[in-house]
Amino acid sequence: MSSPKVLVPLAQGSEELEAVTIIDILIRGGVKVVTASLDENRVITASRGVQLVAQTQLASLIDDAFDMIVLPGGLPGADYLQKDLRVIAMLQKTVSEGGVVAAICAAPQVLVSAGLLNGKQATSYPGVIDVKPAIGMQYLEQGVVEDGQVITSKGPGTAMDFALTLLERLQGKVKRTEVEQALHRA
Amino acid sequence: MSSPKVLVPLAQGSEELEAVTIIDILIRGGVKVVTASLDENRVITASRGVQLVAQTQLASLIDDAFDMIVLPGGLPGADYLQKDLRVIAMLQKTVSEGGVVAAICAAPQVLVSAGLLNGKQATSYPGVIDVKPAIGMQYLEQGVVEDGQVITSKGPGTAMDFALTLLERLQGKVKRTEVEQALHRA
Ligand SMILES: [Mg+2]
Ligand SMILES: [Mg+2]
Repeated sequence: MSSPKVLVPLAQGSEELEAVTIIDILIRGGVKVVTASLDENRVITASRGVQLVAQTQLASLIDDAFDMIVLPGGLPGADYLQKDLRVIAMLQKTVSEGGVVAAICAAPQVLVSAGLLNGKQATSYPGVIDVKPAIGMQYLEQGVVEDGQVITSKGPGTAMDFALTLLERLQGKVKRTEVEQALHRA
Repeated sequence: MSSPKVLVPLAQGSEELEAVTIIDILIRGGVKVVTASLDENRVITASRGVQLVAQTQLASLIDDAFDMIVLPGGLPGADYLQKDLRVIAMLQKTVSEGGVVAAICAAPQVLVSAGLLNGKQATSYPGVIDVKPAIGMQYLEQGVVEDGQVITSKGPGTAMDFALTLLERLQGKVKRTEVEQALHRA
């Protein structure tokens, strides 16, 4: 069985704790994670100033297929993701091909822009998507919300639960439990 | 009041989730965090392959004073930290000057090497320091252990509690609570 392939776009000002928690936990679970910057500068200065180096730039994999795309939150990172029409198109393509899209913190706003939260249950960092005009979306006060092909989460404090939920979706409950136990949560 | 100053050394193979959670949360709480590579290569390939760029190299701040030094875990990162005599000396100097030293996961082994866990209560990732010959240290099965100037923690799953404990020590309970609430833990 080949490893599932996941794209994590990294923008200037993405939330580093969220991004790295997602990437780390998916890799621990045997997922192939591809990180991509939005432009040719692969050095990302994240929301709190940590510098991360993306593996590649988005332009180089625009036609690739992914089992899942995961968007970290953070500002202005989530705004850059929202304004990038390639990101919007890749999210829509992934859903139309049966894959999963996931977003945390400020990033569920990108899923709204892509039309992927219409009629869905979802969550976000408070004040991000719960104040949007009605699109038939139901906002839930939960750390992680799964609704079909869309998974959303609240913020840095729920990033680990979010990452483990994504891992379970991709690799099953046994693998999720194995990885979670090795994290030694309190 | 000037900001407390904290050193986070980053070695090749340090645990990225632990490192970034610590750095992110301390910065959220107004702490001045300095990240330093052990050699002139400031691009750190962390334990799961995420690349982080350290702000400077350790050689450039060897005579600086810090209120706290925090060691991320991960292998081989913690082994490189343990073998670096400059790290050992800086830990000892920080304690002798009244500062705090802290380590998570595999990194408490570095505190053992520095002689700073003698007679202390501490924790680590299971199998790291609980199997060491007796040095008058008491191993505790807790997520985070505080004993005077030494704070230790178990692993990735306790990194957020660890970081918040460090923040409380540096900036007080009000600031810790403010930062913790903004994380929106589940
Ligand atoms: Mg955010
Ligand atoms: Mg480790």
